[in-house]
Amino acid sequence: MAEYQYQTRILVAVDCILFGFDGEQIQLLLIKRGFEPMKHQWSLMGGFVQPDESTDDAANRILKQLTGLEGIYLEQLHTFSSPDRDPIERTVSIAYFALIDIKQYQQQLTDQFQAAWFPMQDIPTLIFDHEQMVKMARQRLRYKAASHPVLFELLPQKFTLPVLQHLFEDVYDTQFDKGNFSRKMLSTGLLLKQTDKDKGSSKKGAFYYKLDKKNYKKNFHQLLRIVPNAHELI
Amino acid sequence: MAEYQYQTRILVAVDCILFGFDGEQIQLLLIKRGFEPMKHQWSLMGGFVQPDESTDDAANRILKQLTGLEGIYLEQLHTFSSPDRDPIERTVSIAYFALIDIKQYQQQLTDQFQAAWFPMQDIPTLIFDHEQMVKMARQRLRYKAASHPVLFELLPQKFTLPVLQHLFEDVYDTQFDKGNFSRKMLSTGLLLKQTDKDKGSSKKGAFYYKLDKKNYKKNFHQLLRIVPNAHELI
Repeated sequence: MAEYQYQTRILVAVDCILFGFDGEQIQLLLIKRGFEPMKHQWSLMGGFVQPDESTDDAANRILKQLTGLEGIYLEQLHTFSSPDRDPIERTVSIAYFALIDIKQYQQQLTDQFQAAWFPMQDIPTLIFDHEQMVKMARQRLRYKAASHPVLFELLPQKFTLPVLQHLFEDVYDTQFDKGNFSRKMLSTGLLLKQTDKDKGSSKKGAFYYKLDKKNYKKNFHQLLRIVPNAHELI
Repeated sequence: MAEYQYQTRILVAVDCILFGFDGEQIQLLLIKRGFEPMKHQWSLMGGFVQPDESTDDAANRILKQLTGLEGIYLEQLHTFSSPDRDPIERTVSIAYFALIDIKQYQQQLTDQFQAAWFPMQDIPTLIFDHEQMVKMARQRLRYKAASHPVLFELLPQKFTLPVLQHLFEDVYDTQFDKGNFSRKMLSTGLLLKQTDKDKGSSKKGAFYYKLDKKNYKKNFHQLLRIVPNAHELI
């Protein structure tokens, strides 16, 4: 097969962008790279795809090998293929991302490659084009959060509006007016007001709410009225 | 660099899914594959990525080489990496897609690989996992059409509601109730009614409409109320 015979075979890698919510803010998981070049520099979890596995399987295998984490649904984000992205040899990398509840997975996390969580505003310099990958993953997260209950799934079963607002502010890197956010969120029809209050943060207390899962499909697009620059997300 | 040295290099390819609108229906561009195995069988436009180019550049180069088409914005869709997808040798393929106005590009189209347009309901059997790629591209198109003016951009400057309905029915592979569709579409605030009518299709005639580009950003999410199963798209 002549057409195949003369082709250049290329290194194929995967890189994993893992966001975690700790109850207050969204963080990014990084490791210290285990081989040259740039050994010991902060990096996404990445590695090379083996002959007998898909990129999906490689991403899961590599995440487990480097951090101990498993059972996480990794979504394919984008393939990065700039010929110069890896200074040693031309490498094409398929990036994957996920958003998890840190508390749920903290026990699995190993220290072999010094895996650590970094707040989004305090991300260190990363190798290669990993910062570009993180940037794209953040944008994808914003789009998903505007149309899926993904953020609600991270919060406890019941939550207050201030907590919900803080999470949206973290994801969209913005400040909402408190009254505006509450009013708009309540008008989406997505929330079920509970009878009890959280008296911890203020004397008056804040009512608990739950996600109305029955009506989610009908009303999810209302979230697009709340998030900033929604038309740029989708 | 030991970590690099022992890795398997892999064949990397791109495949292009090109949808075209001819004024009435959406069609898919296919070619007859030019090399073994499965030479002369219907195929997407595909080829191998060269050492000095990104996958974006490869997609554009290959589309031009196989069909003559150029100047089309190809969007990266997904990377397909099942180890068995190519029976000759393990190949990872990055799929790209686009939706074009056929009339605008018809002159560029060459016959070298017998490029031909097929209505979505009449697509022949394709090689490898190309049908899976087309299926995913159709789903992405449905999602984009529910939140971007992409379908409006294919229609003439002014159009009637029946023509708009036919196009949405083609993309979503569904039948809309005529009164329902008109009422919902008019309530989106996306259309500007014109004073003239198209008297060609019926004695009474149908009013022309234009897309309200000024208010598009504010109202685009209203399209999600019209398309079927919107919650599954996003």
